[in-house]
Amino acid sequence: MSRRIDVLTDVSRGVRTAEYRLDATSGIRLAGSDAWSVSANTLRGGLSEGVDVVRIDNGRLAVDVLPTRGMGLWKAACDGIDLGWKSPVALPVNPAFVNLGDRGGLGFLSGFNEFLCRCGLDSNGPPGVDVITNNLGHRVEAPLTLHGKIANIPAHAVSVEIDPAGAGTLSITGVVDEAMLFGPNLRLRSTLSTEAGSNRLAIVDEVANRGGNPAELQLLYHWNFGPPLLGEGARFVAPLRRVIPRDPRAAEAGERWNEYTAPTAGATEQVYFLEPLADADGWSSAMLVDPAGTRGASLRFRIDELPHLTLWVNGQAEADGYVTAIEPGTNYPNSKGFERVQGRVVVLAPGEVRRFETELTIHATDDEVRTTLEAIATLAAGHLPPKISPPLIEG
Amino acid sequence: MSRRIDVLTDVSRGVRTAEYRLDATSGIRLAGSDAWSVSANTLRGGLSEGVDVVRIDNGRLAVDVLPTRGMGLWKAACDGIDLGWKSPVALPVNPAFVNLGDRGGLGFLSGFNEFLCRCGLDSNGPPGVDVITNNLGHRVEAPLTLHGKIANIPAHAVSVEIDPAGAGTLSITGVVDEAMLFGPNLRLRSTLSTEAGSNRLAIVDEVANRGGNPAELQLLYHWNFGPPLLGEGARFVAPLRRVIPRDPRAAEAGERWNEYTAPTAGATEQVYFLEPLADADGWSSAMLVDPAGTRGASLRFRIDELPHLTLWVNGQAEADGYVTAIEPGTNYPNSKGFERVQGRVVVLAPGEVRRFETELTIHATDDEVRTTLEAIATLAAGHLPPKISPPLIEG
Amino acid sequence: MSRRIDVLTDVSRGVRTAEYRLDATSGIRLAGSDAWSVSANTLRGGLSEGVDVVRIDNGRLAVDVLPTRGMGLWKAACDGIDLGWKSPVALPVNPAFVNLGDRGGLGFLSGFNEFLCRCGLDSNGPPGVDVITNNLGHRVEAPLTLHGKIANIPAHAVSVEIDPAGAGTLSITGVVDEAMLFGPNLRLRSTLSTEAGSNRLAIVDEVANRGGNPAELQLLYHWNFGPPLLGEGARFVAPLRRVIPRDPRAAEAGERWNEYTAPTAGATEQVYFLEPLADADGWSSAMLVDPAGTRGASLRFRIDELPHLTLWVNGQAEADGYVTAIEPGTNYPNSKGFERVQGRVVVLAPGEVRRFETELTIHATDDEVRTTLEAIATLAAGHLPPKISPPLIEG
Repeated sequence: MSRRIDVLTDVSRGVRTAEYRLDATSGIRLAGSDAWSVSANTLRGGLSEGVDVVRIDNGRLAVDVLPTRGMGLWKAACDGIDLGWKSPVALPVNPAFVNLGDRGGLGFLSGFNEFLCRCGLDSNGPPGVDVITNNLGHRVEAPLTLHGKIANIPAHAVSVEIDPAGAGTLSITGVVDEAMLFGPNLRLRSTLSTEAGSNRLAIVDEVANRGGNPAELQLLYHWNFGPPLLGEGARFVAPLRRVIPRDPRAAEAGERWNEYTAPTAGATEQVYFLEPLADADGWSSAMLVDPAGTRGASLRFRIDELPHLTLWVNGQAEADGYVTAIEPGTNYPNSKGFERVQGRVVVLAPGEVRRFETELTIHATDDEVRTTLEAIATLAAGHLPPKISPPLIEG
Repeated sequence: MSRRIDVLTDVSRGVRTAEYRLDATSGIRLAGSDAWSVSANTLRGGLSEGVDVVRIDNGRLAVDVLPTRGMGLWKAACDGIDLGWKSPVALPVNPAFVNLGDRGGLGFLSGFNEFLCRCGLDSNGPPGVDVITNNLGHRVEAPLTLHGKIANIPAHAVSVEIDPAGAGTLSITGVVDEAMLFGPNLRLRSTLSTEAGSNRLAIVDEVANRGGNPAELQLLYHWNFGPPLLGEGARFVAPLRRVIPRDPRAAEAGERWNEYTAPTAGATEQVYFLEPLADADGWSSAMLVDPAGTRGASLRFRIDELPHLTLWVNGQAEADGYVTAIEPGTNYPNSKGFERVQGRVVVLAPGEVRRFETELTIHATDDEVRTTLEAIATLAAGHLPPKISPPLIEG
Repeated sequence: MSRRIDVLTDVSRGVRTAEYRLDATSGIRLAGSDAWSVSANTLRGGLSEGVDVVRIDNGRLAVDVLPTRGMGLWKAACDGIDLGWKSPVALPVNPAFVNLGDRGGLGFLSGFNEFLCRCGLDSNGPPGVDVITNNLGHRVEAPLTLHGKIANIPAHAVSVEIDPAGAGTLSITGVVDEAMLFGPNLRLRSTLSTEAGSNRLAIVDEVANRGGNPAELQLLYHWNFGPPLLGEGARFVAPLRRVIPRDPRAAEAGERWNEYTAPTAGATEQVYFLEPLADADGWSSAMLVDPAGTRGASLRFRIDELPHLTLWVNGQAEADGYVTAIEPGTNYPNSKGFERVQGRVVVLAPGEVRRFETELTIHATDDEVRTTLEAIATLAAGHLPPKISPPLIEG
């Protein structure tokens, strides 16, 4: 049987599918599962008006993709484990309602509630004034907003592919342009794929500089985990050379920086900048293990693509968004100017395309958790426990 | 006969009704009137694209509710009297087209044309920089925009209820969230109801702090009246302890502060901060009486909920929005920082819900006007005329 | 046969036509061509979601009008010549996604890709802080964004007219309001018309001050030309009294200021402020001639309406938006404050309507090009070559 490709959205060709469903009743048989489906609908009402949601369900793992929000992932579930978190912003927000400049460049936070939210492409990190060379060759101030724009730009092309080869693979590809005259002209082409019946998904992103001049790129994958994986006694585990607490508040935790406490009203966030170790093929990994130690979620990423890893611990009350984020990135989420000086801002040549690959696996048994822990320990050999540096910021 | 509830919008459940009509042909009989109806449609085109309008018509009083604009009231009419005003902004504006930060935080004015517009929830008053404690515990600047956000947030849940008990009651309930991570997490649940055949409507709003920390709340009801009730010789009447002109310009009117002049091109606005008196049950009231003294509209509100009353007189040319506003609020519409120092910013505990009740009555006969004037005079007994203080601002 | 008028959009009357087509199969016969048509559709997906496109095709010249973007022209084509340019922003952008305040007031550039884009109405020119008198009579700062708002406001009324008289005329009229309380209250009523079978279109715009006070107006027509008319060796020709390079960079070209070079990555823009000469009836003209000298496009405009002409040369790589713009305007696109001091800001009395008329002709043969060049040379007699002044800005 051959591949099937369905175009859901293509602005140039006038295609936009409001309602869509494809499953085994179509006659397509996938060896990995009969219970697979791909479905799409558009949210209506409130701040969600017009937000497209595409659900990729491989029969075991289901994930909701948001083309309208830069191909972010809204939620996922696998083996009875819900992935994502409960942001104070309850539902997906159409970028048309998001003013990124709001509250001094923090408007991003009025739409931030995804399981996976990309931060970039021209910049990520806190709001602030960058200094750039403009089209007249002058050095000018360019105000940047929190975590950039890409999560608030709708994909203009979205397609779904079913490939029956092997276990059978379901994938979705979206194309998102972050472009303006005299500014960045970057294109994200993102493909999420998952094998039928598996507990794993893969994301392959390609970012192209479509402009005629070199262009800066910052890209960070903000993978956000709330309960049930997060909770008092949950742990973050990764093979690390070094841990750099962002500030004295983060440093307070000492060697227990990677253990989570119960949600606490008014708790201030902690951020750790991490130096990941990789295997001989260049792959590193990181895992969140639940309080019982029997379930978890792990990410694999390549340190030649995403060399910097950040851990965000937001230990606030559940009502305020109790969440932790594992953030592989091209940089740490400091101000762009700071990261540029540190040599952590990618520069793409005209026409250059950079690839970023990440895998997410959900572990529903203590066996799987143990195996992954062992693999991480092997990677970390000689670096256990990782060195903890003084905080980056004196506070 | 039992109540009938129709859900018009519920994002979570995928409900959004584009066109809706319910009236006596449904078989529901209301004792107060046979001519009642509830209808809904969505405006299409221009800046109004996607704005839902729900008309509640009790057979005598009809009001257009705007779920897309935070459950504001677009217009109303009763006994041949049109309520509302002619803003330079002619039609309802979808918040997607409103940039609140525009022109130094005055973007609100590019969508402001409602009969009733709520100002809040985290803040109201003029644009300016507030100083708050952020999620890192730092004191930081937070730019606020004119009159806050709630009027530019669409309701994510809207339902209509018909209760045949008594005269029969028509109501609409909408839920609007003003929320962001590390920011306010406030929910407005607003119910507007009116009895079949009556000249009255009631609004019951509940505002909940859904966050895990105490949250500030500012809420002001901006009831806007243009012609025919407003005009040269019209009067504002209310039981007051004190009148505080905002500035020397407002103070110029002296004891005739509550009498309206004809629209005048270039006239600057006047604002009066008022201290309302209430009856033994806590209810105060305020009325606008038309130039002939034979028609009017009055508001009733509770001073334990809305202790501060503001009168706005915008005596400009009709083309520029000749209008007066009666504004019961939790505070006066000064800068939030100023109001905070005066103790006029509400603080809600985590989970706390605060209730706000307001009634509007349209008076189409001089009898009704006289009766209301007498009731107000009774309330004001011992305070007539109210003391006029020096202007708040020296100018 | 009588005129046919079809209303495509009228918010007040609840009219919005999603799909529309009218052509000779309707029975309407136009002497100039049988191949004429008018069609409308709405783009779906990405940043183009909800953008209406109306195509007016006279059988020879076709133009795509964007009511959603202030009646701008997306693209045109005539006699096999494509008009418009390739902006880094590939597709028409719904203003709901444009934050004009972004990047220090440059957000306009994230939606800028039209063949014709109007800049105005309250202001055009670079972002910056203007000082105005507000509704309280105070002198306050008003931040202005690049090229104003009108290109990012959807028309609330759009209609199409077919007039069989003569060769037959196709036209579209749109009404766009740029209005806010205490701010500008300007209405653009724009009609584009073209005769069946012709190589010409005409735009007649009327701008009304709907407010009760005098109102400022700035209007500039940003006609943008990329390849094939633009290219190395292409020339700009116009009857001019004087040429004022904006800055030393622009002055570098000397007497060859009007000759185009090949696209060059990193080239900085050049801007020339021009003083156009007119014929006895008040009409001036300007032409872009292609590299071969055999094809071109010319504009005619009235110097009593649009006395100032600007030439923008953006010689960047094609990927970065290689383009030149011919910009007849009420002013030069400097800061509004500067233009005001120079007496180049129009002031409209209350109720005043100002008319602006422009004609575009496409020249597909060297004969036509030659004839137009001769007409321009006649107009320029006694001023050839035009005086080149020192640059306006010392740099």
